[in-house]
Amino acid sequence: MNTTSNVEAIEERRKQMQEQGEKLKARMTKIKHKIAVISGKGGVGKSTVTVNLATAFAMHGHAKHIGILDADIHGPSVPKMIGLTGQRLQVGPPGVFPALGSLGIKVVSMDFLLPDVNSPVIWRGPLKMTAIRQFLSDIVWGDLYVLLIDLPPGTGDEPLSVAQLLPEMDGVVIVTIPSEVSQVVVRKAVTFARKLGMPIIGVVENMSGFICPKCGTRFDIFQSGGGQKIASEMNVPFLGSIPIDQKICKDSDEGIPFIIKHSDSLASKSFMELVNKIEDFLKAKS
Amino acid sequence: MNTTSNVEAIEERRKQMQEQGEKLKARMTKIKHKIAVISGKGGVGKSTVTVNLATAFAMHGHAKHIGILDADIHGPSVPKMIGLTGQRLQVGPPGVFPALGSLGIKVVSMDFLLPDVNSPVIWRGPLKMTAIRQFLSDIVWGDLYVLLIDLPPGTGDEPLSVAQLLPEMDGVVIVTIPSEVSQVVVRKAVTFARKLGMPIIGVVENMSGFICPKCGTRFDIFQSGGGQKIASEMNVPFLGSIPIDQKICKDSDEGIPFIIKHSDSLASKSFMELVNKIEDFLKAKS
Repeated sequence: MNTTSNVEAIEERRKQMQEQGEKLKARMTKIKHKIAVISGKGGVGKSTVTVNLATAFAMHGHAKHIGILDADIHGPSVPKMIGLTGQRLQVGPPGVFPALGSLGIKVVSMDFLLPDVNSPVIWRGPLKMTAIRQFLSDIVWGDLYVLLIDLPPGTGDEPLSVAQLLPEMDGVVIVTIPSEVSQVVVRKAVTFARKLGMPIIGVVENMSGFICPKCGTRFDIFQSGGGQKIASEMNVPFLGSIPIDQKICKDSDEGIPFIIKHSDSLASKSFMELVNKIEDFLKAKS
Repeated sequence: MNTTSNVEAIEERRKQMQEQGEKLKARMTKIKHKIAVISGKGGVGKSTVTVNLATAFAMHGHAKHIGILDADIHGPSVPKMIGLTGQRLQVGPPGVFPALGSLGIKVVSMDFLLPDVNSPVIWRGPLKMTAIRQFLSDIVWGDLYVLLIDLPPGTGDEPLSVAQLLPEMDGVVIVTIPSEVSQVVVRKAVTFARKLGMPIIGVVENMSGFICPKCGTRFDIFQSGGGQKIASEMNVPFLGSIPIDQKICKDSDEGIPFIIKHSDSLASKSFMELVNKIEDFLKAKS
């Protein structure tokens, strides 16, 4: 390649990036609130919280105006949990359309782009940043009340990309389990959010105690009180605890949010309390 | 920078990389076996399995000859679980020395390099690859029977780097929980290991059922049988199941491997069976 065509190629790329940036801005101005769900440590129930939070918003007068971006490129769980396994994204002149879950929840996940469910995405960071940018700029999200972004564990490429692409983020919800091992990693997530200037809506303690359905005895399988402890230590709001309930896992496996399938359970009631706190936070902002 | 100094800089960098490559090879030839512990999905107990596996090897005649590389740069849990929180790595003429846990287990983790426990590592992929390369080339591991590598969830930069840096890897142990949501992601991990040519030692099902300590009723909190199912579907060995036991979480929080603290528990017995299978795999190889 000679120098002239090199310069042209760079100029072409610069133009493309600028156009994509403008498209991203235009799409995002139609979305009233953006919330990221993060955790630091994996397997604490981040995707379960995201899916049920989206469902709660949809039930509270925002049906068809809620979106979920599953930004966990390597380990997407949202499609399975919301009953959209095997879906494909539809393409039309205005862009790519999200898949539609119950209550009209709009979902985008890497899983909708893979040849089959067993395929891993063996990508290094820069490719992941590109994918997330496209999810935000090329997807026809339409007018949304809230876009929830389910981020993978850690403080690496994906959360960094989201923070940089969406400086107008309303805030982050941090999910933890009670154990000290989880707290060690969640503390890092709090510091991460602060360093990147993302407001912290609060901490949710998931898998908080198991009450034996037969004899009624409570067992703190993953210890207890860690969420509250970390919230007060790090000076961030505590949003509430969700108990361990085997129905939650079963419902997720069946693709139905547990707050729909088991709305009378203690877990659902605890969950709805924390949803109210998040709604209050958003109302106070707008 | 002019062209000559540019060429010189590239040449200098090439030489550095080559030297580091040679150092890495020299260090690694002194380590008889290398095993990676992976999962796809986070929070399934990968670090718990790694720490207890290392302890079991140390107890079975290999004290002082076992190493753990905690390759989870963003969410290191190994130090807390093995009682080494707040340790620092010591530097001497031959290189950097690992921290020493019980039974002389040699541990290296990003956490030993951070200014304080709340600090997140806000790094993109290329920096993580550099860190892992240094952990393998600059650490004075000495003569080891096994080096266990605890990888973060996913199929991104860290597992890719380890696979490329250690083509002589003996194999990977894949940890899952029984739920279908976890299986979806673990299937990707199996495909990932195959694509990168890493032998699969087998699948471990963790958090497999909870037996109420009071009334004795069994509850499959995270469903049941998923590990066996995935092993037979993907045609890989099944190594065994570890039941949910609140003592495991408590022991991890206290920094003592549960197979030491609660050696008589059902969980410890199940764990020792799978350790035997892994030892058989290694013996068959050497």
